[in-house]
Amino acid sequence: MKRTATAHWNGDLKNGKGDISTQSTVLNHSQYSFNTRFADGVGTNPEELLGAAHAGCFTMAVSAVLTQQGITPGDLTTKATVELNPAEQRISQITLELTASTIDGVTEEKFKEAAELAKANCPLSKALAATPITLTVVYQ
Amino acid sequence: MKRTATAHWNGDLKNGKGDISTQSTVLNHSQYSFNTRFADGVGTNPEELLGAAHAGCFTMAVSAVLTQQGITPGDLTTKATVELNPAEQRISQITLELTASTIDGVTEEKFKEAAELAKANCPLSKALAATPITLTVVYQ
Repeated sequence: MKRTATAHWNGDLKNGKGDISTQSTVLNHSQYSFNTRFADGVGTNPEELLGAAHAGCFTMAVSAVLTQQGITPGDLTTKATVELNPAEQRISQITLELTASTIDGVTEEKFKEAAELAKANCPLSKALAATPITLTVVYQ
Repeated sequence: MKRTATAHWNGDLKNGKGDISTQSTVLNHSQYSFNTRFADGVGTNPEELLGAAHAGCFTMAVSAVLTQQGITPGDLTTKATVELNPAEQRISQITLELTASTIDGVTEEKFKEAAELAKANCPLSKALAATPITLTVVYQ
């Protein structure tokens, strides 16, 4: 199964401009630039897109783990924070903060186990094995 | 520097529904589901978002490498293909296909060296060190 996306750039690093599109057209020539990445320009940047990919993958994986156990989850919400160290040009940390509504008959311990399993096994986590990933869970 | 994104999911794996948003609001409750990920439903999926992140990071990095060498690039376009092995739930391959317009005074060999340097050093490539990444370059 192949999924594609395309980025375009023209010009030097600081004055150049780019845009990013995805196969689904959910991103359709979305603008990005040095300022949207390293300062506070309006537009997207690779780090928030990585966060979107990881949050999406992980949250679906939590549902998958619970579904395999015969449990239907309620609301699952994950905020992913991707931390870039600009000096090292390295993503130093990804934090996943999962908030979930309580499911009848599922203890907090059991839920957290499912979340940890999803964190370990979702395809994005495995692809990002070289990057520290931290998970927090609020089950309420 | 921190960038964030949020995913929401409700329900079991196959019938549940989710949406994904980014800090910049370029993604704003963009829908995703089992079908948009593993079949041909309309909507986004984590793999194309990862491709978007990597294509965006890499293409900007090519410009950065050339800028450091005192060279201003023209059009750079990268298509990223993210291959998911559903049975193994693993991203088995990322392919970056870069097409670039010729720059006066820059040989194909020199350009390809810059592209390889960008592939090796862009933050997304380093974060994805556990995943095979292939680069092809068309310089014309």
